[in-house]
Amino acid sequence: MRVASVLESISAGIRCFASHAGRAGEVVGSVDKKHTISGVINVPQRILMGPGPANAHPRILAAQALPLLGHMHPPFLAIMDEIKSGLKYTFQTDSPYTLMVSGTGHAGMEACISNLVEPGDKVVVGNAGIWGERVVEMSKRFRGEVTDLKVPAGQTVPYELLKQTLEQQKPALLFLCQGESSTGTHQNLTGLGELCKKTGALLLVDTVCSLGGVPMFADAWGVDAIYSGSQKCLSAPPGGAPLFLSPRAMEKIQRRKTPPATYNLDLNLIGDYWGWFGKRSYHHTGMVSTCYAMREALALVNEEGLESMWSRHKELHHRLWDGLHSMGLKSFIEKDEDRLITVNTIKVPEGIDWAALIKNAMDEYNVEIAGGLGPSAGKVWRVGIMGYNARPANIELVLTAFKDGLKKQGWKKF
Amino acid sequence: MRVASVLESISAGIRCFASHAGRAGEVVGSVDKKHTISGVINVPQRILMGPGPANAHPRILAAQALPLLGHMHPPFLAIMDEIKSGLKYTFQTDSPYTLMVSGTGHAGMEACISNLVEPGDKVVVGNAGIWGERVVEMSKRFRGEVTDLKVPAGQTVPYELLKQTLEQQKPALLFLCQGESSTGTHQNLTGLGELCKKTGALLLVDTVCSLGGVPMFADAWGVDAIYSGSQKCLSAPPGGAPLFLSPRAMEKIQRRKTPPATYNLDLNLIGDYWGWFGKRSYHHTGMVSTCYAMREALALVNEEGLESMWSRHKELHHRLWDGLHSMGLKSFIEKDEDRLITVNTIKVPEGIDWAALIKNAMDEYNVEIAGGLGPSAGKVWRVGIMGYNARPANIELVLTAFKDGLKKQGWKKF
Repeated sequence: MRVASVLESISAGIRCFASHAGRAGEVVGSVDKKHTISGVINVPQRILMGPGPANAHPRILAAQALPLLGHMHPPFLAIMDEIKSGLKYTFQTDSPYTLMVSGTGHAGMEACISNLVEPGDKVVVGNAGIWGERVVEMSKRFRGEVTDLKVPAGQTVPYELLKQTLEQQKPALLFLCQGESSTGTHQNLTGLGELCKKTGALLLVDTVCSLGGVPMFADAWGVDAIYSGSQKCLSAPPGGAPLFLSPRAMEKIQRRKTPPATYNLDLNLIGDYWGWFGKRSYHHTGMVSTCYAMREALALVNEEGLESMWSRHKELHHRLWDGLHSMGLKSFIEKDEDRLITVNTIKVPEGIDWAALIKNAMDEYNVEIAGGLGPSAGKVWRVGIMGYNARPANIELVLTAFKDGLKKQGWKKF
Repeated sequence: MRVASVLESISAGIRCFASHAGRAGEVVGSVDKKHTISGVINVPQRILMGPGPANAHPRILAAQALPLLGHMHPPFLAIMDEIKSGLKYTFQTDSPYTLMVSGTGHAGMEACISNLVEPGDKVVVGNAGIWGERVVEMSKRFRGEVTDLKVPAGQTVPYELLKQTLEQQKPALLFLCQGESSTGTHQNLTGLGELCKKTGALLLVDTVCSLGGVPMFADAWGVDAIYSGSQKCLSAPPGGAPLFLSPRAMEKIQRRKTPPATYNLDLNLIGDYWGWFGKRSYHHTGMVSTCYAMREALALVNEEGLESMWSRHKELHHRLWDGLHSMGLKSFIEKDEDRLITVNTIKVPEGIDWAALIKNAMDEYNVEIAGGLGPSAGKVWRVGIMGYNARPANIELVLTAFKDGLKKQGWKKF
């Protein structure tokens, strides 16, 4: 009876490939859907000077071609330990709670929000662009009560506004984005850790496009949670999200009344896989190649040293702007102290076709210059100075592409 | 005043590195946390014959060393299109809704559960081991009402039980795991698509350890959603989760009253990045290297052909068992038709130390044989026959390791 009804349900003409059936002896059809991929993958070379991904360091790419290890094998667990240690240096923390989330910066963001926000928690979001917008959205989805401190595009969130809001609202969490890549602003974090401790909030900071390019002192600044990305100043491919929690943030997570909605990003479980609690429990299959890449990325940070990395990024930022200013171009960001070093937003002058300049840069120089995003769309170009790409030759190439693109549109200011 | 209070909060002795300050002019401390990683990564060679990851194909590893492209660049979008097409073949579907989730199999699982389950939805979980357990847990976190059809370890979920439960409960979703790698069972899916359609349920199937190793006919079998893993029969590193939705499943997602709790895995947004709806909207930064790997993995599936892959896995499964039987070893799975080809569970005989045999295999032969997991822990060895590793030489090596390990413990049956 059962078999009969099944046979009826299979459209006529489908043959049974008994020899291909799994052990379960399913009634299988024929392979009638065709495949269209053939040949070896074709990847052109590009110089990625947009807001990321930046080009990865060749040593990091090479590490991704190494053979796999098991995700619970001791040599792989040792690599995970190296990542934790490398992140402690990179975040400048003594907290044992660092790891690489298996996923992109968005997964890092969601790991923080979903674990640090309990339903009904008050969340204050410093919202200076698209990343603030997303944290507002995410916090709502995890049932937080959000206060959206939205500032005009190109500005940062003023300390006084944050102070007032924290003192009035006493939220569970304050979010700020150190480097807002959609607008090109750098949020000053000075004094905010102290303020959060006083008012009982945890301080969560997005460092996706800033970590390794500008200073971050997690402990000295009193930051409680940070997520980042691999594909910006760390010079690795996208896919692994560095994460940091202070002991205070960890305590909040362990005191939760209900587990976070996401099992995949439950930091109690992931932390247990990364050895936060003295043992190693399987949660998911660690991203082996991506961990190799992150390990090499952090070794490179060590070899160069943080101070040297920060100086290099800063010097090239000035070199870029010296060139841009000489062409008569201006920053989208009014205040000098609000400007982000790693993602630079350049005002599109009136009468200039921003998209045509970008196309010319790619067609003629094989270099990516990006347009705006979210609140800056159509208003700016964005140039990234990040990690392996933060080298004089790349800055000169970008300037050449700008010069040529502007000339072709009849720009007279140089 | 503000600066004064900040200075108080910074412990004495920390100098200000003005030259390292970001544009924002933060008051920065000194780099006093030391780094401990040095030198180039060290990765030993292993033959991974456990339940996964299996060794990746060298051509796939090589693809991961290719230079990055931007996550919205046309050549990268073309690679994403190739992945969608390759997955249509691999799942045997004409549905346009295929993509690779940026994350491991767990992210794939959570993408399906979080999008297909609305708060209050009835979910019936065929629970034959650890993957069933996790879907029970995940469905509860996303506020589904779960009926847990738990069967004893080593058994599959009987058709009659499923039929009865679906007819009584009329759930929104039925979950089954095609290959339950914790116990080594293969769930027969025959007739279930039809049953689900009749009772109004969507059929979700886990194929993490089975896709490419045993038949899957998503359309012919009436499956509505599938997630899988990259690191098993597809021979790629862990990190990308193949995903399929039927038009019926897509409709349910688009009809949701509330968005899923997870923004990171919201399939409306991710699908929009993968071009499901005719355009390309940025959601997250696609995992570029991991996509290269998946593209090559699917090209290899194409070149070999599904029928050939299924036959190869089946033949080697028989070769393994011929050898194991000749040593007097037995399957953990009672019924022949319930046995999974890709992950084989071997009963540990009384008096034999399973861990010692595993250690001997690694120490002497550099080959991974795994122990049990969840309900099979301590009771079985697990041997994977998956993808690039499904080759005669590897099976012979595993058999040699078993023979040697048993001999050293005085096993007399051969």
